Parts: sequence; structure tokens; C-alpha cells
Amino acid sequence: MITKAELQRLRSLRDKKQREALGVFVVEGEKVVAELLAANFALAEVYATEAWRRPATLREDTRIVRVTDAEMARASHFPTPSTVLAVGTMTRRPIEPAALASGLTLALDGVQDAGNVGTLLRIADWFGFARVVLSPDCADVFHQKVINASMGSFARVPTHRAELGTLLAEAPADLPILGCDLSGTSVYAITPKTAAVVVIGSEGRGLSSDVAARVTERVTIPRFGGAESLNAAVAAGIVCAQLRRR
Amino acid sequence: MITKAELQRLRSLRDKKQREALGVFVVEGEKVVAELLAANFALAEVYATEAWRRPATLREDTRIVRVTDAEMARASHFPTPSTVLAVGTMTRRPIEPAALASGLTLALDGVQDAGNVGTLLRIADWFGFARVVLSPDCADVFHQKVINASMGSFARVPTHRAELGTLLAEAPADLPILGCDLSGTSVYAITPKTAAVVVIGSEGRGLSSDVAARVTERVTIPRFGGAESLNAAVAAGIVCAQLRRR
Repeated sequence: MITKAELQRLRSLRDKKQREALGVFVVEGEKVVAELLAANFALAEVYATEAWRRPATLREDTRIVRVTDAEMARASHFPTPSTVLAVGTMTRRPIEPAALASGLTLALDGVQDAGNVGTLLRIADWFGFARVVLSPDCADVFHQKVINASMGSFARVPTHRAELGTLLAEAPADLPILGCDLSGTSVYAITPKTAAVVVIGSEGRGLSSDVAARVTERVTIPRFGGAESLNAAVAAGIVCAQLRRR
Repeated sequence: MITKAELQRLRSLRDKKQREALGVFVVEGEKVVAELLAANFALAEVYATEAWRRPATLREDTRIVRVTDAEMARASHFPTPSTVLAVGTMTRRPIEPAALASGLTLALDGVQDAGNVGTLLRIADWFGFARVVLSPDCADVFHQKVINASMGSFARVPTHRAELGTLLAEAPADLPILGCDLSGTSVYAITPKTAAVVVIGSEGRGLSSDVAARVTERVTIPRFGGAESLNAAVAAGIVCAQLRRR
């Protein structure tokens, strides 16, 4: 059962400003909700219709609010509502430059495509990166599209929002900061590292100048054909794979 | 100027069956039209409004039909029409199994996401692959979303549609056929090859059984974290990069 006031509040979460003001995010769909629960992510509220197939990963203590199809249709952000809608708490963790000294960091500089940001979280997760840092002009990590495209990695990889130019300027002096470029060291010459930052720029604009100034190693993926560039996530995947080469 | 009958025909091309029947495809947008023209792709018809910025790559002999904003709005497949709409001819080229002996082939087995198919064309183009072969259940290579996501690579990489199981069964006996799998040889152990097939399956279902049966080398991208899989295009990029390692 859901009260009229609760439904009204859920509906108001369609508005990004309202979500920001309340510090919450919304995800919808059986797959993504099951992925977050499987990753032990604490979802503050779960609303489900009768048709919802409870995932095997559901913990006993998760409170499920039953809603009718009509209520779900009112709450949903989509024209075709799913059987489940969950609300989670946004946690924006600051990051200290010194923290970059430990483990691998994927830094996203103005990556605005939400699908790409999600795919990049998944890459960071696959290759066991310690964290992903996003510049303020990236797609928001709490955007439904980002969470969906990350296939659960959103719940496993710590993410931070930071001005990258400032953060990297204060990073430990000997920390390798790798940036993709059309001219630089061949990616095949990268030696595996246990601590490093990989910076990925926007596909259209590349790295911003204050971030580019902090790159210590320009990396190129050798080209054999006519394409002007690779997709940002594909390029990141190739660089990250080389960093983990055994 | 455009006649009422021409406008009616353009409008009918919103329907996939109609496009198939006439053997044509449609692309819209200044960026994609400029990319196709830059790749010397012969566009049969180009319709443009006054606001269209003619790309530097436009050939003198390209016939441009001027249309009004209202006419473009009627012809466009999108709620927000662009300044230019072009019609091209679909060319479905058959492929002989013996042709696989020359160069690198990217084979897509049931990759249904149009954006992923476009990104995969771009990867094949970047790494100088000789061709891309798509199983009939892949997203259609002439879909606007595929062409857009390919960033012009659609016009540079030869594509073919074929039943992959049958094609690979008749491929030259000594041809390496690589397939991504969660257990197999480490991708880092792949030696560069001048002729090989890389098979990429659907993210949800993996390789179909008749294609999997033809794989001669199972390749694994070692995992370090919690993600269950990588995006299909990201995995393909990592394997293709290793094949081109110098």
C-alpha cells in the first residue's frame, strides 16, 4: 500500500532538481534492481507490482511496498513502466589527491554520454580499478542510464566527483597519469602498473587543457584503417587491458 | 523544389518494409551526411533546408534538392528534424567462405544493439579489418542508428550478411577463428595474425551453438574485479588490439 502523499513524492522524483534536493536517485527495471541487490547495495525503498519476479538476491530485511499497475504508471519515469522501482541514497564522496597513490584510477573528463559512463564503470570494475573519478561536466553517475549501462558495476566501484585539473595537480609527484592521444607512446609499450591514473576525455572535445597539462604519459592506440577515432569506452578498455597485462 | 509525390515517397521510407522493398536506406543529420560524403560514399539523393551548412567534402556533382522546413518535417523520421536527409542504395554483398582467407574479419553473431554494431564497425575500421560479416539476426547495418554510431566507418568497411555457422563451416581449414569466452587462452597470449576471424556474440546470449562449434581459439580477457562481463564492443576492441600488437 502506498499513500497519496508518497506517490506524489515518487512522482516528483522525475525532476532532477528534486532528486538532487532530496539526495536520492531512482532506478527502474527487474534487471537493474536485481543487479544492485546482488551487489549488496542498500536500496532505501523498493516499490513493486504483483507481476514483479523477486530476485534470488533479495535480502529478507528489504522492505517492499506493493503498488498497483496504475500507481506504478504514475510513479515511473518511463512511458512503459517496469514492475519495480527503487529509490537509493546518493552518496557523494570527496577524494583527497593522496588517495590516488593507491591502486588504479579511471578519471573521466567531460564524458557526457550516459551510456558511455556506465560502460566505463563496467570496465573499471572488470579490471579491478580502485575508483572512478568524474569531472563535474560528466553525465551524472546517479542517472538511470548510467546505472543501467553499468550492469551493476555502479554498486561495486567507488565513484567520486572532482575538478580533475585541481585533483591531478595535487596528485603524488611520481604517479603515472596516462592520457589517450593521437600521438604518443604506443599502447603496446605500456608496462603494467599497480598505481596509476587513466584519463579519458570526451569523444568530441578530447581532454580539457588543464587535465591534458597533468598527463605524464601520452598513449596512442596504433591505427591501421580509416576511422578518425575509437569510441571513448573502447579506447579505455584497450588501455586498461594493457595496464593489467600479465 | 520537391514534388508532392516525391515528398510522399520520402515519407513512406519511415517504414522499414518500404525501405527494404525499394532497396534504400535513409540517414539524417549534418554530421553523418558529411562523414559519408567524406568517405566518398555515393548518396543517391540529398535533401536539405536553407539552414544546411554544406560540408567541405561535398562533391560538385552531388545533386541537392532544396526543401522547406515544413517539407523536411514531413519527410524526417525524427520528431526534431535535421537540416539534411539523404537516401542511399543498400548493397547487400554475398561472401564466399574462401574470401575469409585474406585479411582480418570481424563476425557479429546476433549483436542486436544498433549502437554496438556501429561501434564495432568503427573498431574494424580503426584496426584495418578487411570486412565485417553480420548474422541475419544482428541489427541491420543500414539502420540509421548503426550508421550514426559508426562515425563514417559504415562507408569504409565492407559489410556482408551471412549465416555465420554455414560460412565458418566452409572457411579454409587452417584459418584461426577466435571467440571470446569466460574460459580460454588469455588475450595477452594471442599472437598477431594477418588472416583470422574474430567472432563477437550477443551480450545476453553469447555465441550461438553452431558458431561456437567453429571457434578454433577461445580467448579470455582476464578479470580482476566484480563485473560479470564487458560490453561486447569493448571486448572486441581489446581482442582486435591484441591481434594488431606490434
